[in-house]
Amino acid sequence: MTIFSLKCYTCDRISGEGIVGEMSEDKKISIAVIKRLPRYYRYLGELLEKDILRISSRELSEKMSVTASQIRQDLNNFGGFGQQGYGYNVEYLYHEIGKILGLDKTYKIIIVGVGNIGQALANYTNFEKRGFVIVGMFDINPRLIGMTVRGIEVRDLDEMEQFVKKFEIDIAILTVPKTKVVNIAQDLVNWGVSGLWNFSSVDLKFSKDIVIENVHLSDSLMTLSYKLNEKKQIKNYKDEKRSTAMRNHYNK
Amino acid sequence: MTIFSLKCYTCDRISGEGIVGEMSEDKKISIAVIKRLPRYYRYLGELLEKDILRISSRELSEKMSVTASQIRQDLNNFGGFGQQGYGYNVEYLYHEIGKILGLDKTYKIIIVGVGNIGQALANYTNFEKRGFVIVGMFDINPRLIGMTVRGIEVRDLDEMEQFVKKFEIDIAILTVPKTKVVNIAQDLVNWGVSGLWNFSSVDLKFSKDIVIENVHLSDSLMTLSYKLNEKKQIKNYKDEKRSTAMRNHYNK
Repeated sequence: MTIFSLKCYTCDRISGEGIVGEMSEDKKISIAVIKRLPRYYRYLGELLEKDILRISSRELSEKMSVTASQIRQDLNNFGGFGQQGYGYNVEYLYHEIGKILGLDKTYKIIIVGVGNIGQALANYTNFEKRGFVIVGMFDINPRLIGMTVRGIEVRDLDEMEQFVKKFEIDIAILTVPKTKVVNIAQDLVNWGVSGLWNFSSVDLKFSKDIVIENVHLSDSLMTLSYKLNEKKQIKNYKDEKRSTAMRNHYNK
Repeated sequence: MTIFSLKCYTCDRISGEGIVGEMSEDKKISIAVIKRLPRYYRYLGELLEKDILRISSRELSEKMSVTASQIRQDLNNFGGFGQQGYGYNVEYLYHEIGKILGLDKTYKIIIVGVGNIGQALANYTNFEKRGFVIVGMFDINPRLIGMTVRGIEVRDLDEMEQFVKKFEIDIAILTVPKTKVVNIAQDLVNWGVSGLWNFSSVDLKFSKDIVIENVHLSDSLMTLSYKLNEKKQIKNYKDEKRSTAMRNHYNK
């Protein structure tokens, strides 16, 4: 909880104190819950596509491999939404979670670095449906500058400062090499960008006013290899146990 | 814990029982720890690049924004590695975590769907350094078939079955549309693929013998928008509180 003091602009005296936290830190939702919300949102979206308008917490729980009580707990953080004996109203819940996720707002986005990943993201029309509107793309490569992706022109990095300030960009998607990303991110923050979606395999850190999501695709691949390896070890262990038991049986 | 029985191939009698779990479920590492391992691995790799060979758990903790006790707990799952008063040997820890993650093995990988994301992943040379070797790429688009990316030819999807069986592919990277992914994944599993890295914005589910990592890039973007929105609400709340206090002060 942070306490801040209020100073009178005229007499310069402290006129009161405010507590940030009554609605922020005190009611702060854990990061684990926040990370699950997009999944709820996706699943509910899939149900809507299939015209399913009502779902019990048990069904939702089976579909999502999360316990029904977990779902109730998660959604209680935001005031519930379920009705005893009725279950959840899919459309209502979908829109409410959308609002919680801030998807009822519109965000102005630029992509910095227009390689394969940058182009893939620019082509992803689903983002736009959720309010993430890509308004500009930037690169230093002369072969890419002037090209358009879905009608959006790729501009020279030199034009970025003016563009960001003029259009008051909210979020920058960073798909630049890791040697460049720190300086570029610092510039963007100085120019007023408050959200960074970073694909550059370096964890960016700024003051807590700046929101950063660092994406590390290779982490997911390493988790996959861990699990594959674990399965193999278990299999080898089973095989070994089995053949030892066999040997013992025949040697009796 | 699973108990399995051992049957004699000759006399058909049950010759013993084995317990899977002595080394698997009992010693099972929590998914939260597993998910942190790639981060440790990345950070240690960055230290090595800077020729830093020794690090205290306090320094590692600051760098990673994880408590020192958390780091000790995490690494104790795999037998420790730290020495009181010395800290961690970066190179040793890097290689040991690499082994735990299965990065000392080589995996044969195919990419199914050679759009922007598929091409971006094919171009990512770091994967290969960690043992993930892309040996084939497949698509149905005639414009892409025959093209090469880093020397790897894009083949017709029709050739995939033979290829997967012949080269005993371990992992398939799926970057196909979500309407196609379930059938393609099922085929691959039938042909012996045991790991699926799925980018198709549908959660795949198979028996527990198949390892799946579902990547949902938009989840990360929605988390970003949640946090941006939360910050804005806190700011509005602060501003409101401040102006109320101001008003009260002047109205006294």
